[in-house]
Amino acid sequence: MSLTIRDVYQAAELIQLYVHRTPVMTCESLSQRVGAQVFFKCENLQKVGAFKFRGACNAVFSLSAMDASRGVVAHSSGNHAQALALAARLRGIPAYIVMPMNAPLVKKAAVEGYGGKITFCDPTLEAREQAQSRVVSETGARVVHPYNDDQVIAGQGTAALELLQEVPDLDVILAPIGGGGLVSGTAIAARGISPRIRVIAAEPEQADDAFRSLAAGKIVPSSNPQTIADGLLTSLCDRTFAILQKDVEQVVTVSEAGMVAAMRFLWERAKLIIEPSAAVAVGVLWERKIDLTGLRVGVILSGGNVDLESLPWQAAKNSG
Amino acid sequence: MSLTIRDVYQAAELIQLYVHRTPVMTCESLSQRVGAQVFFKCENLQKVGAFKFRGACNAVFSLSAMDASRGVVAHSSGNHAQALALAARLRGIPAYIVMPMNAPLVKKAAVEGYGGKITFCDPTLEAREQAQSRVVSETGARVVHPYNDDQVIAGQGTAALELLQEVPDLDVILAPIGGGGLVSGTAIAARGISPRIRVIAAEPEQADDAFRSLAAGKIVPSSNPQTIADGLLTSLCDRTFAILQKDVEQVVTVSEAGMVAAMRFLWERAKLIIEPSAAVAVGVLWERKIDLTGLRVGVILSGGNVDLESLPWQAAKNSG
Repeated sequence: MSLTIRDVYQAAELIQLYVHRTPVMTCESLSQRVGAQVFFKCENLQKVGAFKFRGACNAVFSLSAMDASRGVVAHSSGNHAQALALAARLRGIPAYIVMPMNAPLVKKAAVEGYGGKITFCDPTLEAREQAQSRVVSETGARVVHPYNDDQVIAGQGTAALELLQEVPDLDVILAPIGGGGLVSGTAIAARGISPRIRVIAAEPEQADDAFRSLAAGKIVPSSNPQTIADGLLTSLCDRTFAILQKDVEQVVTVSEAGMVAAMRFLWERAKLIIEPSAAVAVGVLWERKIDLTGLRVGVILSGGNVDLESLPWQAAKNSG
Repeated sequence: MSLTIRDVYQAAELIQLYVHRTPVMTCESLSQRVGAQVFFKCENLQKVGAFKFRGACNAVFSLSAMDASRGVVAHSSGNHAQALALAARLRGIPAYIVMPMNAPLVKKAAVEGYGGKITFCDPTLEAREQAQSRVVSETGARVVHPYNDDQVIAGQGTAALELLQEVPDLDVILAPIGGGGLVSGTAIAARGISPRIRVIAAEPEQADDAFRSLAAGKIVPSSNPQTIADGLLTSLCDRTFAILQKDVEQVVTVSEAGMVAAMRFLWERAKLIIEPSAAVAVGVLWERKIDLTGLRVGVILSGGNVDLESLPWQAAKNSG
């Protein structure tokens, strides 16, 4: 059975005690530039610094007591790993995280900080999946995929739900697309509330597999994408591609320079720390890739986890 | 007549159409570290990126139509200059800003962006005051001092007022002190609402004139202070010192390293861009300079205007 707005409402009720109801902000100078009224849903201010906590939380708290008792597992070195570790800790169950041994120390420390148990493996998809299977057979833990999972998608949709509760008359909602979990949840929520709302996905030009998949009518996997938006390197799955085809108007791509400019603008003017993967949705506005004149536009600022030692505008300057 | 909570309520009503009602945020990891519940009033998300807009707005909109028509003037190259320029533009009157000719281009551009008319002068206090007097005699503009002004102080107090409307049962409120406008307004508001609330000022160790003034029982001017908190270089005035003596429990000083660590922590964990002058109040918590165990603590995050090209932890690394 396919996901509906009811699943998003249920998720919202289940996770409300655990997630932040993040603020909605405006930035006059960006609205003026775009000629639209822009509303930011600040998931960079969500726990663990990303919307991923919503989906992980819904998946963890949807488990029966017996299933939950054996814990949860995922292979990830990104925001999903931290999100799952924290959600599991809040439920009082173990979280097993499979991570490539070359993952940055800071990511390892973050997962351990939330009480996750890390298994290291070789840095290939095959090794990661093998290690995950081994954890499952040893512990009986439930796999929580970062986006190929109905509970995860429904959880991600709660960000758009809250946004529309606060700003009901949006014409358009923009969200970044990697594996498609956020965009899928956003589309289920927004179009379930009003089919009039246009949902648009934003993707780096240099990791444009969702754009190409929509054009081809089938999933085109991403191959060796090179982008600073390190949260958007993953490919679509059946679940998210089906929702994309049905409920998302279009995928708009943004250059690396456009992402960096949009990210910097939001840091400087809105004082909000967003990561490059969040900046791609702002980049659609910044570069005026589509005409949104006179509209009311929501943007999901998906996350704010960045390395403060090396910021992209500084990297550009140093290498330039 | 001395300022009271009524002046703050009046200011709140007068400026409500123009200022952002900024969000109040929490950061669990900081609260845990301190052993207290900490609530941040995010004036870094205020218009022009600082609380200064509240005071400037109240001063500008308190003027009679006739006085206002001749415009306002201030000598400043910091947040007050931008705040006054924007407030004046919103009222449709001229703002004359006197600025030393060696002020950074970015500050000049910011003031001009808000429609301020700049007069350049030599970079001495004497030259600035002379230039300001000249503008007054040529235009009839009203001087709006950044803190030695009752309307400005009452306006700054509206941040604490909003904070206490949202979180009524605070035990302590912390705010940074430079000239004392923010702390004075905060104290008038907080202690007007409940004399039980302790108001504590935070100051850089290397610009500790307020600390020394309170100890000496008279204003000790700051002399050549060296701190990254460039918004806190100014000295107290009679108005703010009187309020400090009466309604502020103590001034707590924080090292440069403490400010940098607190600033970085808030960027990394709370995803909030704050400037060093705001970080000093967080530094009191970060360095556990006073025991706040079990208390409910409000912190005014005073501003977020920083140069993203050179961040203090990078400077420390590069020079180290």
